[in-house]
Amino acid sequence: VSGFVWLVGAGPGDPDLLTRRAARCLESADLVLYDALVQPGALALAPHAQCFSVGKRAGRQAMRQETIHFLMIRAARRGKRVVRLKGGDPFVFGRGGEEALALAAAGVPFEVVPGVSSAVAAPALAGIPVTHRGLASGFLVVSGHAEPAYRPALESLAPRSATVVVLMGLAQRGAVAALLLARGWSASTPAAVVFDASGPAQEAWRGTLAGLGTAAVPEGAEGAPGTLVIGDVAALELSFAQRRAAPSRLSTLDSIRSRR
Amino acid sequence: VSGFVWLVGAGPGDPDLLTRRAARCLESADLVLYDALVQPGALALAPHAQCFSVGKRAGRQAMRQETIHFLMIRAARRGKRVVRLKGGDPFVFGRGGEEALALAAAGVPFEVVPGVSSAVAAPALAGIPVTHRGLASGFLVVSGHAEPAYRPALESLAPRSATVVVLMGLAQRGAVAALLLARGWSASTPAAVVFDASGPAQEAWRGTLAGLGTAAVPEGAEGAPGTLVIGDVAALELSFAQRRAAPSRLSTLDSIRSRR
Repeated sequence: VSGFVWLVGAGPGDPDLLTRRAARCLESADLVLYDALVQPGALALAPHAQCFSVGKRAGRQAMRQETIHFLMIRAARRGKRVVRLKGGDPFVFGRGGEEALALAAAGVPFEVVPGVSSAVAAPALAGIPVTHRGLASGFLVVSGHAEPAYRPALESLAPRSATVVVLMGLAQRGAVAALLLARGWSASTPAAVVFDASGPAQEAWRGTLAGLGTAAVPEGAEGAPGTLVIGDVAALELSFAQRRAAPSRLSTLDSIRSRR
Repeated sequence: VSGFVWLVGAGPGDPDLLTRRAARCLESADLVLYDALVQPGALALAPHAQCFSVGKRAGRQAMRQETIHFLMIRAARRGKRVVRLKGGDPFVFGRGGEEALALAAAGVPFEVVPGVSSAVAAPALAGIPVTHRGLASGFLVVSGHAEPAYRPALESLAPRSATVVVLMGLAQRGAVAALLLARGWSASTPAAVVFDASGPAQEAWRGTLAGLGTAAVPEGAEGAPGTLVIGDVAALELSFAQRRAAPSRLSTLDSIRSRR
């Protein structure tokens, strides 16, 4: 009997944002290898599984990628049902493609279960639609992890021709803002940083590209992932909870449009 | 007693790719207003609800956007629990932002429930990771619906600096290819079209940017949505089902890398 590996997207954090298929995979799993951003509530959906963290933690190094491959393949060859649970979507950064290649090379059957990507969900949960008629008809997603990775795309994209979303972008917010300003983006372009989207410490900073580089990280969100959103849509705040504060934001829509 | 509206992403089609929160919203809904791409299996999750299609269908016009707003607001004011079920994610095209604005303006409480976007899931389900170390460190998502909407971003983006994903891009595949070729993208850049992602007629065309304009639509997928994927990652086919056909594709990875 051969095992099986599911490469599963866990969504931005809140276990309610796992897909029904992800929940079913966890329900039947013998082994779960999970990333650092996966929340305990997601692991509670896997009552029969051994659960191992393979992600980076404060003060501890992440497991080597090859070790993760080895653990998945060995368990599958022993007949185990393995869930590799990754934050967001398995194919949006996070090296899911490499894991799929390793499984294919080893002859281990696997399936990819797409997840809710933070690239869209982090802005949405802060009330920011990455596209909006008249404001943005597309969006560019890059990782803030390494400058050579995001520079070519950000440097070429025409100012305001698409919303820019930078995942894991907190440390690079100054460099990203400087790069876009040098490319000709206006200093008054709306910008936002969403901290710990869907998590207990969710909070958003809002301002302009001029202020993005010095945007303060709220207390309690220091270790949390940060998603940068840059573009006219970042001035919107389409959530009911903030409605009492919202009229001024909602009315900015017309002024944004008239500026263009 | 006041009603409530959830703007819910239904994912790419397969009801298993709805989130757990989406399923719970449907479970408790009195009224579901759904788009054309939502599959019957999703509506089966709403046993107590009246379900109305408000999307475009062959030969019939879509309901006017203002009518959708009116129906949501009226039902909520009558105390109903309303789910506005939208294909993919509510804030990736599809006018979810406008619906949120209308609800906020009417004082109707609402919540956005992010979904699995076809922008990432359609490629993933065909075995294409939108990002992959050494091949693509970002992705640009545009809608093929209107040329003025996608042109500025596509025209400026430096060749191969990010994967390009065009949703609803089937009709415009020739125009998109021509635009990228004129921008300096190589004719040999890998390209793919994913038809009916996660649906019963799912199929993928694979080739290069040179052939994209004349890519044939498979029988049975004529009315289905098509997602274009352009960039080195489109040469990958990371799914186990196609594994026997895959060695040649997998081995292309090295040749792609060495070309760069």
